[in-house]
Amino acid sequence: MKVGDVHYQSIWVDDKDPEVIKVIDQQQLPFFFEIRELRSVEDAFNAISGMIVRGAPVIGVTAAFGMYLATLEMNPHTNIRDHLGNAARYLISSRPTAVNLAWAVNTMLNNLEAIPNQDEMTVAALKQAKKMLKDEAIKCKAIGEYGLPLIESCSREKGGEPVNILTHCNAGWLACVDYGTALAPVYLAHENKIPVHVWVDETRPLNQGARLTAWELANEGVPHTLITDNSGGHLMMKNMIDMVIVGSDRTTRTGDVANKTGTYLKALAAHDNKIPFYVALPTSSIDLELDDGLAGIPVEERDPDEVTNVTGFKDRELVSVRICPEATMAANFSFDITPSRLVTALITEHGMCMPNEKEIVGLFSEK
Amino acid sequence: MKVGDVHYQSIWVDDKDPEVIKVIDQQQLPFFFEIRELRSVEDAFNAISGMIVRGAPVIGVTAAFGMYLATLEMNPHTNIRDHLGNAARYLISSRPTAVNLAWAVNTMLNNLEAIPNQDEMTVAALKQAKKMLKDEAIKCKAIGEYGLPLIESCSREKGGEPVNILTHCNAGWLACVDYGTALAPVYLAHENKIPVHVWVDETRPLNQGARLTAWELANEGVPHTLITDNSGGHLMMKNMIDMVIVGSDRTTRTGDVANKTGTYLKALAAHDNKIPFYVALPTSSIDLELDDGLAGIPVEERDPDEVTNVTGFKDRELVSVRICPEATMAANFSFDITPSRLVTALITEHGMCMPNEKEIVGLFSEK
Repeated sequence: MKVGDVHYQSIWVDDKDPEVIKVIDQQQLPFFFEIRELRSVEDAFNAISGMIVRGAPVIGVTAAFGMYLATLEMNPHTNIRDHLGNAARYLISSRPTAVNLAWAVNTMLNNLEAIPNQDEMTVAALKQAKKMLKDEAIKCKAIGEYGLPLIESCSREKGGEPVNILTHCNAGWLACVDYGTALAPVYLAHENKIPVHVWVDETRPLNQGARLTAWELANEGVPHTLITDNSGGHLMMKNMIDMVIVGSDRTTRTGDVANKTGTYLKALAAHDNKIPFYVALPTSSIDLELDDGLAGIPVEERDPDEVTNVTGFKDRELVSVRICPEATMAANFSFDITPSRLVTALITEHGMCMPNEKEIVGLFSEK
Repeated sequence: MKVGDVHYQSIWVDDKDPEVIKVIDQQQLPFFFEIRELRSVEDAFNAISGMIVRGAPVIGVTAAFGMYLATLEMNPHTNIRDHLGNAARYLISSRPTAVNLAWAVNTMLNNLEAIPNQDEMTVAALKQAKKMLKDEAIKCKAIGEYGLPLIESCSREKGGEPVNILTHCNAGWLACVDYGTALAPVYLAHENKIPVHVWVDETRPLNQGARLTAWELANEGVPHTLITDNSGGHLMMKNMIDMVIVGSDRTTRTGDVANKTGTYLKALAAHDNKIPFYVALPTSSIDLELDDGLAGIPVEERDPDEVTNVTGFKDRELVSVRICPEATMAANFSFDITPSRLVTALITEHGMCMPNEKEIVGLFSEK
């Protein structure tokens, strides 16, 4: 997608040196556009845990490249199996909630295990990680195409008035290599000249909506308005929102959706106001082993400082300010679980489906 | 209530000069404890509209003192009726949502209209405003006493484990002269050695929870934890909240509750998790003329800069940082309406009541 007039993806292999992976630093956006280089497993781990890259699809791809970087770190004395196994466990431990992370790492590990020597392993790992990168973009494009008719039909019902879409956090191209999950249908609608307007939840504590979604939408020229996380309910009651589209970090086989904290509150409000609530996700975010999201999905608790402090831009610098008394303790639960009963439908790269076991499992058998 | 070891109310008449009204500057808290002087109707207007004082009960009292200050501004050529009528309209226009404001100003106006000369008017106005101040504190104390049994019985059910109470925004003593509305039962429980723990919603955009509620609770020694506005739903699903208590800026005769934006989302989550949701308010916050909160209560839209920027503390200074791209537009709806069907009960100075017309109107006839 566009940054100014240049097309970018959120992660790529350096043109000149294939041993360097490049990512856009999402902690600096929208204030600074900076590219970081990942040259080791540790760099990949730190990029994920430090949220330089974030968003379920892209942390999966970053971890896959982390496995590739691991193959470059071996020397003749390294036990290849142990080394890769350790790298895999290390990368998977970088963040707990998104299931794509473990999926990508384990896929890499399984493919590499049969390869006898380091050089072939490196070649295979790079090829596999590049394929995952490309596949994520293709999947997101497909999610956009399957989601588009929802916006088209709403636009028709409204006689061409702008379709008002609420989104929470950032499930755009930054989170997903390219196109995005929740934002893919929005971008496609905009490209197809269907008038849309996006209500952007700021998404405390790290303000991915205010920082990243607003920046993405501005770059693509999509009309949007920033609101606090508190406002969506009022807008829904006042008929100012036609649909909600969010992403997901992990969805169970029964359709329970883990996503950024606050998603559940918007799902409740959508349900209360009879507004459709869609979850857009690649099937790699579906955890077929889990029946019960609340009981089964680990919800990451992050540093309380993310709650007690807010980072923003002041006099051309990033500045962190404290918003509460010095001694105040805080808790920082990063995700919540939206029960399937509040989800209207899932939008995946294989098409739409209802949030129930039969339809979700069906997505995998039809593949 | 306490600031350090000193007892304060949020507004008072200066000991030495009765023509000066003093208020704690709530925009500077918790970073600076500063007292502002109100010496004119304009000072009172600015204190309310600039949220130096905020919270429905205390803006009512501030406006009442504003009417008193208006009586001091007359000269022999002033048409007394016109002058007071203008001052009343001016003060009522300072903020639209809280009904106490108009109630307090109109009560003052009605009492003053029969008085023939300025001096007597000034004496009567000061007496009346002081009485309102005292009455608000008495009402809040009564709200605390009526709310206390709810916490006591929950504590008994939990075998003395801490009762976890979520509150949104600040409905503590700063909002209410003394004691608070939502926090009054909490303070009383704490005083009575009932273990309580308060989850404090930060309450974007102006962070009254993070700044004011956390500060109040710390001063009184009440255990509490700051969370983002997004987190309450997850905590409820995880059985980490026993009850919600909030205040109200205006409540209809049918029990619809206007309160700080985001309250409705918490009410939905409480309802979804079968957690009691209480609204604590003086009956002066009840608008007997309104049947339908959503249609009838004006929701203030404030400056979008409050959304695009966050003010906090850094290097001993108040600093405002921008949290989104420079060009991003924002909308700032300050309140929302929680329908009565989501409210468990109202806690008023006349006792508890169900959120329905019969019981609410009954509060007034029993007075």
